[in-house]
Amino acid sequence: MKALVLGGNGFIGSHLVDQLIQHGHRVRVFDRGPEKYRSPLKNVEYFSGEFNDIALVAEALNGVDIVYHLISTTVPSTSNMDPVGDINGNLINTVKLLDLMRQQGTPRIVYLSSGGTVYGIPDYSPIPETHPLRPISSYGIVKVAIENYLNMFHELHGIEFIALRASNPYGARQGHTGLQGVIGTYINCLNEGSPIEVWGTGEVVRDFIHVDDLAQLCVQAGLSESIGVFNAGFGRGVSILELIDILSECSGIDINPVFKSGRVFDVPHVVLDLEKTKRELNWTPKILLREGIARTLESANTENNDRSDLAA
Amino acid sequence: MKALVLGGNGFIGSHLVDQLIQHGHRVRVFDRGPEKYRSPLKNVEYFSGEFNDIALVAEALNGVDIVYHLISTTVPSTSNMDPVGDINGNLINTVKLLDLMRQQGTPRIVYLSSGGTVYGIPDYSPIPETHPLRPISSYGIVKVAIENYLNMFHELHGIEFIALRASNPYGARQGHTGLQGVIGTYINCLNEGSPIEVWGTGEVVRDFIHVDDLAQLCVQAGLSESIGVFNAGFGRGVSILELIDILSECSGIDINPVFKSGRVFDVPHVVLDLEKTKRELNWTPKILLREGIARTLESANTENNDRSDLAA
Repeated sequence: MKALVLGGNGFIGSHLVDQLIQHGHRVRVFDRGPEKYRSPLKNVEYFSGEFNDIALVAEALNGVDIVYHLISTTVPSTSNMDPVGDINGNLINTVKLLDLMRQQGTPRIVYLSSGGTVYGIPDYSPIPETHPLRPISSYGIVKVAIENYLNMFHELHGIEFIALRASNPYGARQGHTGLQGVIGTYINCLNEGSPIEVWGTGEVVRDFIHVDDLAQLCVQAGLSESIGVFNAGFGRGVSILELIDILSECSGIDINPVFKSGRVFDVPHVVLDLEKTKRELNWTPKILLREGIARTLESANTENNDRSDLAA
Repeated sequence: MKALVLGGNGFIGSHLVDQLIQHGHRVRVFDRGPEKYRSPLKNVEYFSGEFNDIALVAEALNGVDIVYHLISTTVPSTSNMDPVGDINGNLINTVKLLDLMRQQGTPRIVYLSSGGTVYGIPDYSPIPETHPLRPISSYGIVKVAIENYLNMFHELHGIEFIALRASNPYGARQGHTGLQGVIGTYINCLNEGSPIEVWGTGEVVRDFIHVDDLAQLCVQAGLSESIGVFNAGFGRGVSILELIDILSECSGIDINPVFKSGRVFDVPHVVLDLEKTKRELNWTPKILLREGIARTLESANTENNDRSDLAA
């Protein structure tokens, strides 16, 4: 199988590339920037450019059996500041990608959607895929629109698709700018000795999935013959306060969080129902949060040491 | 009340303008073209320009209490040919409009959404507003995204909104190009003596609402304090074959339709559940299909005579 990974040098993308190679697939990466976590991999073909460079995307698509679309030019917390930029950067470029796939006969796409934003404030928990879609951020609105276009291009032109509604992925190589990914942000704070900030009371509940589990699900979704939308989480709810307890335990650091006022774009409670995904895609998440956090702490230390070595 | 009607010179818009004036409201019209059904109305302020002329839209918004947004640059049957144009022309311009309303403090908007496309192929009938949204045309996908942005701007910035999910409006002044509005198209065929074409077997079921009923609902929606999405139909299903029978009866012409193969973007059966709209907006459709068609035939004859007079 020849796979094109859009966003293949990013947090999730780089893990997906690793697993695709392990499974013996040929891999092409399209990303705005070069490898940032490691030296360029031999056997991987790299395309470096912006998502709106339609000619380059067309070139990268050539001869590909499956597209993994992991590009997002926004995060939930910033998308509302510039919804037009969000629509241009994500929705329009994705529709252009689908049209290129139609022209070139690319058979299949796996798209990384968002279980944390497409449902809005859920009526019940855990949330199945059939729950109404009532996104309250531009990020979520655009993800819903993209899912709908995937379905439309499937109905009209036969393009096979899976949209994975991922909850909160975490693990090695996650950014830690504070914009997305609370675990990455907190681990960076621990390493830097800066305070751990909590938005609201810390009772916000999330469904954390380790990036290795998510990458494995992406591979499965690509190989399967299923079509449609699938939740991608661990299926267990953990509050921010519980998360901080686990971080304290695993790191051996006593954490005293600083509480700040809540953010309007935060959905209070997201736990995904994984029945359909487990059944149809023959996949189960394996990495428990405690184990996943221990691994992430370890890799963060290794990264820090690597950086110190480079600086020395 | 000072109302801005976007698309106020169009089929539905011109009827809405009439009713707003009857109710004693001050009216401003924004449209790409001039009045096409009549001489410009005194007391109506006209702005002529494209929807993407953001400076002109800003000017038209100045001092307005309510915006009626009836602009659509596409119809369901053409939207799939150019989804990017659909997104640019409708979604992006509407988000820019909402941002202008936020900046200028415009309190309220009534948006004309689409009961015929947002639900996709319905699971049950009649369809309530809580039915899942699974649009299968770009037209419907964009309408859903706009509804979601209306809700987001309400949550974030307090802009009040009502989205009316209209089924199939018909009545005087409807276009008859065959692209949208089967009744207008058929009446034009009768007048021209050209054959009546049926896509598929004629068993497609639609929920026809007379434009006067719809315009009255728009006025009510603007005056009410309700917020959210509301179905706008007659609540009764009529097949294309039944419609042709009624047209035969009302016109006294024996119609022998020509059957053509079905279109992929046609949803087979749409009948809207009007319970919520009747209850919350204190409105009931009054014009039965037979009466509405008789009226439409009559006005079509008048229009034709007017045109003959002009030509003489």
